Amino acid sequence: MTTDVKHTVVLDVMGADSGIAEILKGGLDAARKLGSDVHIIFVGHKQEIENILSEQNENFKNVSIENADDVIPMHMAATDGVRMRNSSVAVGLKLLNQKKADAFISPGNTGAVMASSLLTLGRIEGVSRPAITAMFPTSASKPTVVLDVGANADCKSHHISQFAVMGSVYASVVLKKEFPRVGLISIGEERSKGNELIFRAQEQLKKSQINFIGNIEGRDILSGAVDVAVTDGFTGNIILKFAESIKPMLVKKVQRQIQTNMFSRIGAMLLLPFLKRMRKTFDYAESGGAPLLGVNGIVVICHGSSNAKAITNAIVVAFEMAEKKIIKRIHDELITNHFGQNNGANSKSENNRDRVVCPSPTDD
Amino acid sequence: MTTDVKHTVVLDVMGADSGIAEILKGGLDAARKLGSDVHIIFVGHKQEIENILSEQNENFKNVSIENADDVIPMHMAATDGVRMRNSSVAVGLKLLNQKKADAFISPGNTGAVMASSLLTLGRIEGVSRPAITAMFPTSASKPTVVLDVGANADCKSHHISQFAVMGSVYASVVLKKEFPRVGLISIGEERSKGNELIFRAQEQLKKSQINFIGNIEGRDILSGAVDVAVTDGFTGNIILKFAESIKPMLVKKVQRQIQTNMFSRIGAMLLLPFLKRMRKTFDYAESGGAPLLGVNGIVVICHGSSNAKAITNAIVVAFEMAEKKIIKRIHDELITNHFGQNNGANSKSENNRDRVVCPSPTDD
Repeated sequence: MTTDVKHTVVLDVMGADSGIAEILKGGLDAARKLGSDVHIIFVGHKQEIENILSEQNENFKNVSIENADDVIPMHMAATDGVRMRNSSVAVGLKLLNQKKADAFISPGNTGAVMASSLLTLGRIEGVSRPAITAMFPTSASKPTVVLDVGANADCKSHHISQFAVMGSVYASVVLKKEFPRVGLISIGEERSKGNELIFRAQEQLKKSQINFIGNIEGRDILSGAVDVAVTDGFTGNIILKFAESIKPMLVKKVQRQIQTNMFSRIGAMLLLPFLKRMRKTFDYAESGGAPLLGVNGIVVICHGSSNAKAITNAIVVAFEMAEKKIIKRIHDELITNHFGQNNGANSKSENNRDRVVCPSPTDD
Repeated sequence: MTTDVKHTVVLDVMGADSGIAEILKGGLDAARKLGSDVHIIFVGHKQEIENILSEQNENFKNVSIENADDVIPMHMAATDGVRMRNSSVAVGLKLLNQKKADAFISPGNTGAVMASSLLTLGRIEGVSRPAITAMFPTSASKPTVVLDVGANADCKSHHISQFAVMGSVYASVVLKKEFPRVGLISIGEERSKGNELIFRAQEQLKKSQINFIGNIEGRDILSGAVDVAVTDGFTGNIILKFAESIKPMLVKKVQRQIQTNMFSRIGAMLLLPFLKRMRKTFDYAESGGAPLLGVNGIVVICHGSSNAKAITNAIVVAFEMAEKKIIKRIHDELITNHFGQNNGANSKSENNRDRVVCPSPTDD
């Protein structure tokens, strides 16, 4: 490791459905892209990783390997996963906790990564609940940040308000927006529409320092009307899964159409690049993974089916988050905006590692 | 009106953004399609309707006009809308209540139609809360029935369980499925995933007589894995609005792509019929409106921007619902499946007209 390394990123290369080689390829592409600014530590079966690295024609100076004997299976319960002390997730997060690295990326068992992150790193002071954060494509030039998409099935209003602040900070980092527009997902724009949880969150957010534009509807997520769309983890996860199912549905319909006649077939061939791009539009793996905002360290969760490109993107995003000191910024913003029971003042007295978030099936 | 009329359908021709002529065209197409089986009553400004009808070259024996002086504006609060005693909605629903008609269809102010329906017709015995019911396209051959998509922002578990029963009956009528598969929308298939509301509804539905297949995820709505997807009106409305925004987003992306080069332009021209069909796929107005299940009469709410075809479809669906005696079937099924506080036994003692549902912005 040379002295000009800006940030060290740990990549869990095990446990993805797409296989070690594909994940490693993504890591190496990121190492190439970020150059000497980054150091990437691959965590997993050392021998297997070495075998794949030895096949490369290139000599990477900015990568290293950390052995981990075990792999948390994709469908293992999070509570069992966290007990595997020698898993690639546990070993990787330990490096973060020991300040030997700045960010951890895993395409493995989402529930286990979430629970392990919280237990190992704890929460940022002021955060009651970490939230999984996704990027949705829009018809505008930039995507929309949506959170929580699955970490917390049952939320209180101050959780949602905190998500809004964390999402605002994240959007300012990744979308490079100075004062991101934050909307609260509800069933109507007026005060009288929505449920009790939303009413309370809305009141809190109106008093906050973030650029809260008010309630938005489901349609505003893809329109690019806001930079950040905030919701509870139940609603958010359902929207995410629904959105992920659009692509396979369209592909099936395109395939059926192509079979109907020759003109359609020629048309489809000419439009192939477009259709591919459209598939990508709804491919959330393309967007660089889903950060778990609120834990006291940069953790990015990727789809179990991530390809190399998705992993590269996730590393670049994680690097950017480290560069922009996102943890400190979330902390500072939450101190500025006090929400409900667990603001900066009293959270220190709580054990920041005691609450295990509900495992979410974002990766299966 | 001849004696062989099977069902009389009332069509509110006022209050739609698309205009009286377009709505009337839909009504006349339905009159043509259903022939002497149907009698359609157009409710609205008599003179205006007569003027448009007089321009037709055809003489319709199965339509008539009922005058209504007032129109509830699209964005008026539901509570104000219900007070307009001479509105097309009030006059139309009165015909239903007086047993002069079997079904009411309106492309007007959704909140006002909901509230007026409930006040005028009351609830079916056994129903705690009516639900708005939508059809979602799937990659399978048949659409998925989704409810509630906006009538009830805050639900209790027995409301959701009742929605499941009503959705099951509706699917058996419109999808012609003997034993429709019903799924409960949650964030994971296992018992341990989901929120408290869902846990309780799941327990109730397991004991029900309907074909409850368990929890489903957001992705299962478009996949055709179930015939009926049940959720609370908050989540359902957000999914509906999100789904409705897919089409405009795709159209924008197609337009941008077409401008890029000549091959794309030729490809797009050849694929035009497909692209049109794809637009229709995500055009929920095509599916025949959204019935308000649970009120003691057949009420179908259409988009304010409905075209003639959407209105024709809605009339055909409403006719089918009358033909299959859906009100009696919902009543009977709810008696068989007792859920929570408000089952068939005690609902009679309640005033079935006292609860005004929360207005939902499905039409703006």
